[in-house]
Amino acid sequence: MTVPDEERIARATISIVTEPGDVRCLGLTRELGGVRFLEVLREQPDLRPEFVAAAGRLATAEPERVLEDAARRGIRFVVPGDDEWPASLDDLAGAGMLHARGDVPAGLWVRGPLRIDRLGPAVAVVGSRSSTSYGDEIAGDLAAVLCAAGRTVISGAAYGVDYAAHRGAVAADGRTVAVLACGVDRPYPLAHRPMLEHLGQHHAVVSEAPPGSAPLRIRFLARNRLIAALTRGTVVVEAALRSGALNTASWADRLHRTVMGVPGPVTSAASAGVHELIRAGGASLVTDGEDVLELLGAAGEHLLDVRRAPEAPRDRLTLRARQVLDAVPVSRPASAASVARVAGLGAEEVEHLLHTLAVDGHVERLPSGWRLGEEARSTIEQ
Amino acid sequence: MTVPDEERIARATISIVTEPGDVRCLGLTRELGGVRFLEVLREQPDLRPEFVAAAGRLATAEPERVLEDAARRGIRFVVPGDDEWPASLDDLAGAGMLHARGDVPAGLWVRGPLRIDRLGPAVAVVGSRSSTSYGDEIAGDLAAVLCAAGRTVISGAAYGVDYAAHRGAVAADGRTVAVLACGVDRPYPLAHRPMLEHLGQHHAVVSEAPPGSAPLRIRFLARNRLIAALTRGTVVVEAALRSGALNTASWADRLHRTVMGVPGPVTSAASAGVHELIRAGGASLVTDGEDVLELLGAAGEHLLDVRRAPEAPRDRLTLRARQVLDAVPVSRPASAASVARVAGLGAEEVEHLLHTLAVDGHVERLPSGWRLGEEARSTIEQ
Repeated sequence: MTVPDEERIARATISIVTEPGDVRCLGLTRELGGVRFLEVLREQPDLRPEFVAAAGRLATAEPERVLEDAARRGIRFVVPGDDEWPASLDDLAGAGMLHARGDVPAGLWVRGPLRIDRLGPAVAVVGSRSSTSYGDEIAGDLAAVLCAAGRTVISGAAYGVDYAAHRGAVAADGRTVAVLACGVDRPYPLAHRPMLEHLGQHHAVVSEAPPGSAPLRIRFLARNRLIAALTRGTVVVEAALRSGALNTASWADRLHRTVMGVPGPVTSAASAGVHELIRAGGASLVTDGEDVLELLGAAGEHLLDVRRAPEAPRDRLTLRARQVLDAVPVSRPASAASVARVAGLGAEEVEHLLHTLAVDGHVERLPSGWRLGEEARSTIEQ
Repeated sequence: MTVPDEERIARATISIVTEPGDVRCLGLTRELGGVRFLEVLREQPDLRPEFVAAAGRLATAEPERVLEDAARRGIRFVVPGDDEWPASLDDLAGAGMLHARGDVPAGLWVRGPLRIDRLGPAVAVVGSRSSTSYGDEIAGDLAAVLCAAGRTVISGAAYGVDYAAHRGAVAADGRTVAVLACGVDRPYPLAHRPMLEHLGQHHAVVSEAPPGSAPLRIRFLARNRLIAALTRGTVVVEAALRSGALNTASWADRLHRTVMGVPGPVTSAASAGVHELIRAGGASLVTDGEDVLELLGAAGEHLLDVRRAPEAPRDRLTLRARQVLDAVPVSRPASAASVARVAGLGAEEVEHLLHTLAVDGHVERLPSGWRLGEEARSTIEQ
């Protein structure tokens, strides 16, 4: 099935004349189709206050030129109905509030060889722009582990956690996608031009806004819903109490995706937003890629056991031997008889077990009696 | 109501001849009373295998001498029925498994002026013995905040988190209680002798084991249940995957107390046990004393708002002004006309609002047009 040129051009026009995530325009585009919505816009520009601005821009919009120009620079415009359209974006239908942005985009401008309908199970790794080295390290490791497990890592190419996530994915030779608030041809932030170039050549850079669009605050908010929608789950690595990453997390929650958060020192403001998210039940605590894979894995897949410490020597002892060991003093040595009394076992049996325990250093015999061996003394549970 | 000497002496005897947390002996003591249980022990020492050891020690037990000796050294033996008996300990009735220790102690040996029936709402602050400076700092601050709010801080006087908690409580001039696995007259660990002396003189040091008892592993496990039972909630500050603090936490959970955990860097092994506890739903994440007070507070008391960042300048703007601000480019300046188009508002109104916004530095006017002011640029949510 292919999309008629007329519809693709209509949607390009809508992408040009409306702001990303304009719920009124996008909602009608979804319901009526691009061609029909444009007719509404031309015929009744004042049907809704939100239409006035968009209608005002129709005159100057040059969708064919923009599409050709984009194609020449290796940028394609993917719309619903295309084979490459990611079905996951349709979950945005009807989602969003007037000022929060929302709904299904009219189309996505894509740069790069990666087909966005073939990302497989993708995971968003987002977080603070002013991250700490701790956050960068965690984000990079997380992305690498997820990629090694065949997941695609999606983020926003921003400073800090976003950048670390993309870099970790690239380093692990995995798949990664940057979803931008500005045009896919605009290197923003400028310092990330080399990375964005690399992603554009080997992975994918995506935006709802047409090429040339500037980064505006509303576009970041609109962009966050796409990151959430394109993924099965969002991991927040460091986020201050007021952080856009939390906006992405709330989108993920609204879209019934899994929301995860990586804790950090409670003394770090960069983790305060994540802790609040977990504290309020808005996110599951994850400590590494395995935790994330477990939460996102299909039933039975990647199920983690409860973490256990490595087996301690005493675990290998018989119950009897443990009962004796538990009755041996930590510091001041005691006679075999007193150990037997405490353990509630026969003196002979205890005498025998103590000698066996001494062989592996569980206990040590001093002139004044028996006491725990050094290792046991140091692993006393208290 | 006073407890007959005969019963007190019987319970002292039981405390001397049985191990702390011996569920069989303590269960019967609770059901029959101390006097009657001792008769059983004398008459049918082989009624249960667990009785043999205890019965064997009856001959050498000298409860009167131990009680007098203790009294001379300022140590009292508090038993059920005494005014000073903490009702919260009765929650241990029937709790515990044969080898996990459990049930209500026959009595508690107490040193110090603090009455253990008047601790008010108490909180356990426990954690790793091999804590990091991070854990020590958190534990100390937590204890100080809890004490400042009138809570009593209870811990185990161990190295690391326990010590930091007691110290924080003392520094805050609050109430704190050390529950020991050995006799209250034994400075263990030896390095904590000065602190234990201080607690014995100004607060309270408590143990289920009679004076002179050595620290044994089973006694630590039995001790942990008392820390959990004496408190409304247990906060775990740093715990490796194999840590006794988790044993205290599971006791708190079994006793329907609130279990809380303070997260830390996921790269820190000292926090792995806490993260696992939170991950598995066994503990609520807390970041400071306020969180703890909120979780433990009576309904309506100490209810925290969701944490918010300080109000940002844009929060004080009208919706209209925000719409304009949201449409101003972050980096490359734009004309008022283009801002008006993006915002979907009239050119004149936007022109006016831009100048107003410029006054407070929300936007700045460059020769080439308008762009976000420095502060707004730096707080863009992405």
